[in-house]
Amino acid sequence: MSTQEAVTASILVIGDEILSGRTKDKNIGYIAEYLTAIGVDVAEVRVVPDIEDEIVAALNALRARYTYVFTTGGIGPTHDDITADAVAKAFGVEISVNAQARAMLLERIPEADLNEARLRMARIPHGAALVANKISKAPGFWIGNVIVMAGVPSIMQAMLDEVAPQLKTGQVMLSETVRADAKEGDVGGPLGEIAKAHPGVSIGSYPFADELGRPNTNLVVRAREPALLAAAMADVQAMLAARKAG
Amino acid sequence: MSTQEAVTASILVIGDEILSGRTKDKNIGYIAEYLTAIGVDVAEVRVVPDIEDEIVAALNALRARYTYVFTTGGIGPTHDDITADAVAKAFGVEISVNAQARAMLLERIPEADLNEARLRMARIPHGAALVANKISKAPGFWIGNVIVMAGVPSIMQAMLDEVAPQLKTGQVMLSETVRADAKEGDVGGPLGEIAKAHPGVSIGSYPFADELGRPNTNLVVRAREPALLAAAMADVQAMLAARKAG
Repeated sequence: MSTQEAVTASILVIGDEILSGRTKDKNIGYIAEYLTAIGVDVAEVRVVPDIEDEIVAALNALRARYTYVFTTGGIGPTHDDITADAVAKAFGVEISVNAQARAMLLERIPEADLNEARLRMARIPHGAALVANKISKAPGFWIGNVIVMAGVPSIMQAMLDEVAPQLKTGQVMLSETVRADAKEGDVGGPLGEIAKAHPGVSIGSYPFADELGRPNTNLVVRAREPALLAAAMADVQAMLAARKAG
Repeated sequence: MSTQEAVTASILVIGDEILSGRTKDKNIGYIAEYLTAIGVDVAEVRVVPDIEDEIVAALNALRARYTYVFTTGGIGPTHDDITADAVAKAFGVEISVNAQARAMLLERIPEADLNEARLRMARIPHGAALVANKISKAPGFWIGNVIVMAGVPSIMQAMLDEVAPQLKTGQVMLSETVRADAKEGDVGGPLGEIAKAHPGVSIGSYPFADELGRPNTNLVVRAREPALLAAAMADVQAMLAARKAG
């Protein structure tokens, strides 16, 4: 469904292995790009350790502030997987083995192998809806405005595909990029003027090294209204043309 | 210098381009690994947009809580580079062009090119110490317990090298990894028992697919004391050996 209000989200990455640098996160960029494309603006990201109080505090801060919170990590079968318990605590609800989640696990795991550790993956806070996952079958879940997903990227991506059609979405942020063929410091002045003249538009400037290692700049113009975007982009293009002509 | 207290840090990534997914962050993992290796524990990460109030609020929350805050992004020459101003506001100090920072810029930029946009990069909050950078010469800075660095990875890395020798550091978190040659759900139970029996030790379990795509698990044992680490690792190894023998 689509509305005209801005729909916001935050991403909460849960895991000591990200904070120690042992595992390099691949989920933040993926989720950010995915949500932006469907009209959900990611407004904040946090990474917290596998400590229940930290997870609960971050969850409560974020869910009060944004339309959605997407969490990744901490829903596996081991003692350090404490996300489901932390979510239950944040919402003040009970948690126990969910029959439907258990049945999902049994689609992939023989009943003889469904030990206590694996059954942890079927422990779901009361009141949550399950988020199916084609890869490992172990479900994520959705409670209130919080969507709880796996940390393994392929599984997280399958869960995101599952929930995306049910998300409230806003007007997509449109974006156009132009290569300035100039150093950032050479276009910074005029660009600031253009940004000031176009209040509904956000203009970003991103330096990069070109094919030969020379400094160059990408200018990114973003707006929700096509007309606003076009007007700002026309001014940016005119500024760049004037620079080249001069 | 080295102390026996835990030294903590948070990372504050500043930039709309990360939240939109246009740019995939490469700094969090780098800084996390770097600081962990020298005995500074990264305890939290946040990503916030290019909005002054958001940056100020995050800075004030993080600097009150952790030994250090490392920021990346928003110190370039364009209108969307507002980190220095936000830091000045968070600390309640003035900001203006710093003569030493201006001189650093002139090491690389001819005076004729030092326009108003580029001079933004020499605007430094009063009371801050500069953090030199060999790559672009434009400095970062250090004020209170906040270290302000560039967003471009090569420049950020040069700045981190510059400040690292001056950081207070704690006892390094030691870490050993063992490949379980087992599915995570098969070791989850005994691993939880071992974790309970070794309170000064953190044991993490990370599933991965082996060379042939079969599910496997890395077990990571972490502790500050070598003896604690060795004792827990011995129990983990014994558990894995018993599994293989059985």
